Amino acid sequence: MKSPFRNIGIVTRPNTPEIEHTAHKLIEFLRLEGFGIYLDVQSIEEQAVYPEDAACCQAASKAELGKYCDLVVVLGGDGTFLSVAREVAPRAVPMIGINQGHLGFLTQISHESMIEGLTPILGGKYLPEERALLEVSLVRNGEICDRSLALNDCVLSRGGAGQMIEFEVFINREFVYTQRSDGLIVSTPTGSTAYALAAGGPILQAGSRVFTLVPICPQSMTNRPIAVADSSEIEILVTKSGDARVHFDGQSFLDIHHLDRLVIRRYHNPLRVLHPTDYQYYRTLRQKLHWGEQLV
Amino acid sequence: MKSPFRNIGIVTRPNTPEIEHTAHKLIEFLRLEGFGIYLDVQSIEEQAVYPEDAACCQAASKAELGKYCDLVVVLGGDGTFLSVAREVAPRAVPMIGINQGHLGFLTQISHESMIEGLTPILGGKYLPEERALLEVSLVRNGEICDRSLALNDCVLSRGGAGQMIEFEVFINREFVYTQRSDGLIVSTPTGSTAYALAAGGPILQAGSRVFTLVPICPQSMTNRPIAVADSSEIEILVTKSGDARVHFDGQSFLDIHHLDRLVIRRYHNPLRVLHPTDYQYYRTLRQKLHWGEQLV
Amino acid sequence: MKSPFRNIGIVTRPNTPEIEHTAHKLIEFLRLEGFGIYLDVQSIEEQAVYPEDAACCQAASKAELGKYCDLVVVLGGDGTFLSVAREVAPRAVPMIGINQGHLGFLTQISHESMIEGLTPILGGKYLPEERALLEVSLVRNGEICDRSLALNDCVLSRGGAGQMIEFEVFINREFVYTQRSDGLIVSTPTGSTAYALAAGGPILQAGSRVFTLVPICPQSMTNRPIAVADSSEIEILVTKSGDARVHFDGQSFLDIHHLDRLVIRRYHNPLRVLHPTDYQYYRTLRQKLHWGEQLV
Amino acid sequence: MKSPFRNIGIVTRPNTPEIEHTAHKLIEFLRLEGFGIYLDVQSIEEQAVYPEDAACCQAASKAELGKYCDLVVVLGGDGTFLSVAREVAPRAVPMIGINQGHLGFLTQISHESMIEGLTPILGGKYLPEERALLEVSLVRNGEICDRSLALNDCVLSRGGAGQMIEFEVFINREFVYTQRSDGLIVSTPTGSTAYALAAGGPILQAGSRVFTLVPICPQSMTNRPIAVADSSEIEILVTKSGDARVHFDGQSFLDIHHLDRLVIRRYHNPLRVLHPTDYQYYRTLRQKLHWGEQLV
Repeated sequence: MKSPFRNIGIVTRPNTPEIEHTAHKLIEFLRLEGFGIYLDVQSIEEQAVYPEDAACCQAASKAELGKYCDLVVVLGGDGTFLSVAREVAPRAVPMIGINQGHLGFLTQISHESMIEGLTPILGGKYLPEERALLEVSLVRNGEICDRSLALNDCVLSRGGAGQMIEFEVFINREFVYTQRSDGLIVSTPTGSTAYALAAGGPILQAGSRVFTLVPICPQSMTNRPIAVADSSEIEILVTKSGDARVHFDGQSFLDIHHLDRLVIRRYHNPLRVLHPTDYQYYRTLRQKLHWGEQLV
Repeated sequence: MKSPFRNIGIVTRPNTPEIEHTAHKLIEFLRLEGFGIYLDVQSIEEQAVYPEDAACCQAASKAELGKYCDLVVVLGGDGTFLSVAREVAPRAVPMIGINQGHLGFLTQISHESMIEGLTPILGGKYLPEERALLEVSLVRNGEICDRSLALNDCVLSRGGAGQMIEFEVFINREFVYTQRSDGLIVSTPTGSTAYALAAGGPILQAGSRVFTLVPICPQSMTNRPIAVADSSEIEILVTKSGDARVHFDGQSFLDIHHLDRLVIRRYHNPLRVLHPTDYQYYRTLRQKLHWGEQLV
Repeated sequence: MKSPFRNIGIVTRPNTPEIEHTAHKLIEFLRLEGFGIYLDVQSIEEQAVYPEDAACCQAASKAELGKYCDLVVVLGGDGTFLSVAREVAPRAVPMIGINQGHLGFLTQISHESMIEGLTPILGGKYLPEERALLEVSLVRNGEICDRSLALNDCVLSRGGAGQMIEFEVFINREFVYTQRSDGLIVSTPTGSTAYALAAGGPILQAGSRVFTLVPICPQSMTNRPIAVADSSEIEILVTKSGDARVHFDGQSFLDIHHLDRLVIRRYHNPLRVLHPTDYQYYRTLRQKLHWGEQLV
Repeated sequence: MKSPFRNIGIVTRPNTPEIEHTAHKLIEFLRLEGFGIYLDVQSIEEQAVYPEDAACCQAASKAELGKYCDLVVVLGGDGTFLSVAREVAPRAVPMIGINQGHLGFLTQISHESMIEGLTPILGGKYLPEERALLEVSLVRNGEICDRSLALNDCVLSRGGAGQMIEFEVFINREFVYTQRSDGLIVSTPTGSTAYALAAGGPILQAGSRVFTLVPICPQSMTNRPIAVADSSEIEILVTKSGDARVHFDGQSFLDIHHLDRLVIRRYHNPLRVLHPTDYQYYRTLRQKLHWGEQLV
C-alpha cells in the first residue's frame, strides 16, 4: 500500500485478553501491507495479543510509541484512548481509535469495520482533527512539584470525607471568585461530553477555542459554568483543602495540600486525531447523547 | 416565671470557647427564672462555659439531655443544631437554636436578642413546628448492621478515588432506576436548602410531606430530582461501590460495601422546633438565599 | 358481565376520524356486555364514530358524561385525557385512557390491547388512583372573574412581545418573593413530567401531597423550584404584566391585566383514574423519560 | 485637550428627560475641551437635553453618529447601549457607556464620576475591547427578506399562544438536531450574562471566540447548551412555527413563518468598546452576579 505512514503503533485496552482476535486481524493486515508495527509492552504482558502476532512486532512502551511511530491505533474504548493520548501528545503523533463494542466519542470506528475503515486512512484519505490538551502544573511552596497532561479534564475535588473545599480562581492573573463546593472541573472541548456534562456544563464543539470551568455542587447558586478562551492561564489556589485531590482524565490523581496552586494552560501540542472522510461530528453527539428522543 | 417547661438543656458549639459569655447570660437568666439546667458534658470539657456557671448546672450527655429536659437550647450554628437534633429526636424534646453570628436556617434567634427572644417562648408563647427526620438502615448480607438518623440528608457518595458508583433505587419495593453517578442525596425538607440545593434539588417547604432524591453528577442526563411522599420506603442497592460511603447530615459516615442496601424511612418521631410567634418561614429563605437580588 | 359500572362514557381524540375503528371495537364490546353507552357529542360531530355505532349510544356533552356515567374511557393521547379530566372532575367520575399510538403518562393502555386491558377493570379488578387538580381563581379589581381547573399545570407566562414579567408570590398569605422572569409554572404531580420538567422542575411522585412552583427563565439565579404542601394557598400578584397570559394545561388561556391576582388551591375533588392491577408507576416513567440510557 | 478623537456623538436613554443634567455636564465639558459634538435626534426630540445645550451640537440620527463621529458616548443603561451598538457597528466607531444609576455590564462608568472617567480615555489612555455581534439573515422562500444585527442575542421563541415550536439546527451545514421547545437563544459572549443566563446557559468570557446555543425549556432532557466557534454558520429551519418570532437583543422582532430559515454568523465588524485603564472584567461579573455571596 502506498501510504504517508510507515510505522504503526498498536495499544490494546488493559485487562482485555479477549481482544486478541481483533489485534490479530489488525497486525495481519498491517504486516501484509508492509507497515512496521510497534506493539505496546503492556498489551504483550497482558497477553492481549497472540504470541505469534507479538513476534512480528517491536515491543515499545506507550511513550516510545510516540517516538517510533507515525500513527498509533488504539483498540479499546475512550478510556484507553485517553491514557494513550496523554503519552503520545508530546510527539504529535496522530491517533485512531477502534471501539470494541459501542461507539465512543473518541473511538468511532467499530472493530467489525476496522479494515474497511482503516484502509483509506492508511492510504492518506482522512479528516485530520486537532484536540487541545490541558497542561497542569501543581505548585507547592512556590515550586512546581508535578506537571500532568489531560485530554478530557483536570478535576479538583473533595475526597471521601465529604466536606466541601474552598479555593480562589484566577484567570490571566485576574481574580475571578472564591468558591465553596465539592470541586471544580476544568474541561477541554473533548471532555465537555464527559464528567463536565454530568456536572451541568455546556457542550463545547470540538475545535472551539475555549475551556470550561464547571463547579461541582457549588454552595452558592450564582456560580455557573464559565467558558474561557483556551489561551487563558487558569489558576486555582486551594484555601481549604480538606482531603482534596486533583484528577487527570479520571485516570490518575495527586493529593492536594493547603495553599497548593494548580496552574492550567493549553498544552503546546494538540492531539492529532484522524477520522474517516465521511466523519460527522454531530452524528456522534446525536447517537451518544440520544438527541432526538423526545418525551412524546 | 410561669412556664410549661421545667428543665432546660444547653449545648454549645464545639471548639468555641469564646461562646462562654453567651452561655453565661443564658445560664444566669435561666437560673434566676428558676429553671433546672442541664449542661452538655462536651461543652463543659471544652471550657465553653465558665466554671462558676457549670457549677449551677447538672452535667449530661446529649442523649441524656433528651431524657431529663423539656427543652434544649443550642448555642451555635446549624451544624451544632443538627448534631443535637439526631440525639434528642428519640425523646421528642423540643429545641431552640441561638445563632452566634449570622442567621441560620435552624438557628434563627441571634445571640444579641437571645433573652428577648427566649422570654416569651419559655412563657409558653411560641410557634411549634415539626420537622421530619430520616431513619436509615444499612443492610449487609441480609442483616441490619447500622441504624442512623438524619435531619438534613442521607448522602450516598463516591469516595476520594473519583470513580462513579452504581446503584439501583426502589421506592416502596418498586424498581425505579439504575443510576451511575457521584452519588445520591436523600433529603428532608429541612435538608433541601443544604447540600441537596447545591446539587440542583428543589426547595421543599418545611412541613411538606415529601423527601427528595437528588442525583449528584449523574452520567445520564435524564436523571432528575424526584420528590416522593415521606411515607415511602426508599431503598438503594449499591451494585458498584468503589470506595463509596454514606453520610448523615455531613457529620458522620459509614463505608459502603458491594451489594449493601440502604433502607430509608421517615423516623417515627419528628423533631419539634419552637419559634418566636412572629416567625416567618419565607423571610428566612429570602435572607439566606438572597432572593430579591436581581441582575439589573 | 358483572360489573360495578353501569353507564360508560366515551370520548375520542379531536380531529382524528381514523379513530373510528378503535371506537367501533369499544362500543361493540360494551354493547354486548350490556353497558349503557354515552358518546361525546364532539366525537359524533367529527365523525370519529361510525353512524351505526353512534346509533347505539346516547349523545352527551363532556360535562354531561360526568353526570350520567360511572366511568369515562378516553380514546386518544394525554392531551385528550387532560381536556376531559377538567370536565368530569367535578363529578368525581373515574377515567381510563386508551392511547392510540405511543404510551402516555395518562393513557397507558394501548389500543391493541384495549379489550384485554378493560375487561378486568370493568369487572371490578383495578388499581384506583387519585390525582390532585388545581383550582385557579383570577381576581381582578377585587372580584373573581374566572375560575378554572387544571390537572397538569397553571402557567403564568409572558406573551409574544418577549419582555419579562414581574410578580409577587404569596404562600398561605405569607410573602415569598418578587420574581422577574418569563413566567411561573404551578404544577401538580401529574404535570411534573410535562412542561414543569422542561423548565427544570423536579419530578413529583404521583400521589405525593405537593405542588411545585417552577420559574421559567428567572432573571435571578437564586430562584429555584419550590415544592409546597398541596393544602397551601398559592397567590400570584402580577405587578408588571406586559402581554402576560395564564394557561391551563396548555389548552386554554386568559389574558392577564396589571395587578391581577391568581389564587391557586387544590380542587376539592381529586380526579380518579383506574389502572390495570399490574400497573407500575415507575415503569411508565422509565419508558417515557428514557431512564437507563447511559452515555457509555 | 490633546486627543485622538475629534467628534463625539452623544445618545441619551429614551424617555428619560431627567437625564438633562448629566447631558449638560457632558456637553459643557466636551465643548470646553474643543470637541465637535453630535447629538442624537431622538434625544433632542424627547427634550432629554436643555435647548441651549442642543444648540451647541449638531443633530444626527444614530446611524449618522457612526458616520460623523470617532467616538459615541451613551448616557443610560445597557438597553440604550445595545440599541446604539447595532447602529454604529457597521462604522466600527468605538463606544463608551455611562450608567445613570446602577452598574451595567456595558455601562460601567457611573454618571457621578463621568468626567474623571472620560478625561483619560479622551486623552488616549484606555483599554480597547472588541465584542462580536451576530448578523442574522431571515430566509423565506429562498430569499433573504431581512438582515439584522444583535450584540447580545438572537432569540427564536414561541409567541403568546403557549405552544412549543419545532426546528432543525445546522452548524456549518451539518445537521445537529431537531428540537421541540419554547425556543432557542443564540448568544454572543456579551449576551451570555443576559437572557441566555436566565435560560441556563454558561457564561462566556468576553473575548472568547464562541457563541452559545441555549434551548428554552426543551422537551427533551438531553438538549443542553452548546458552545460553537464564532466562525460557524448557524442555521435554524423552523418546521413548526406556531406564532413564533425572532427577537434581536430583546428590542426588535420579526414574525416567523413555517419553513423560515435563520442564518446566523459573526458580523464582519466587531463592536469596539473603550474602558478605563483600571477596568477588570471579572470585577463587574462579581458585582453583577453577586459572586461571593455564600449561603453560610
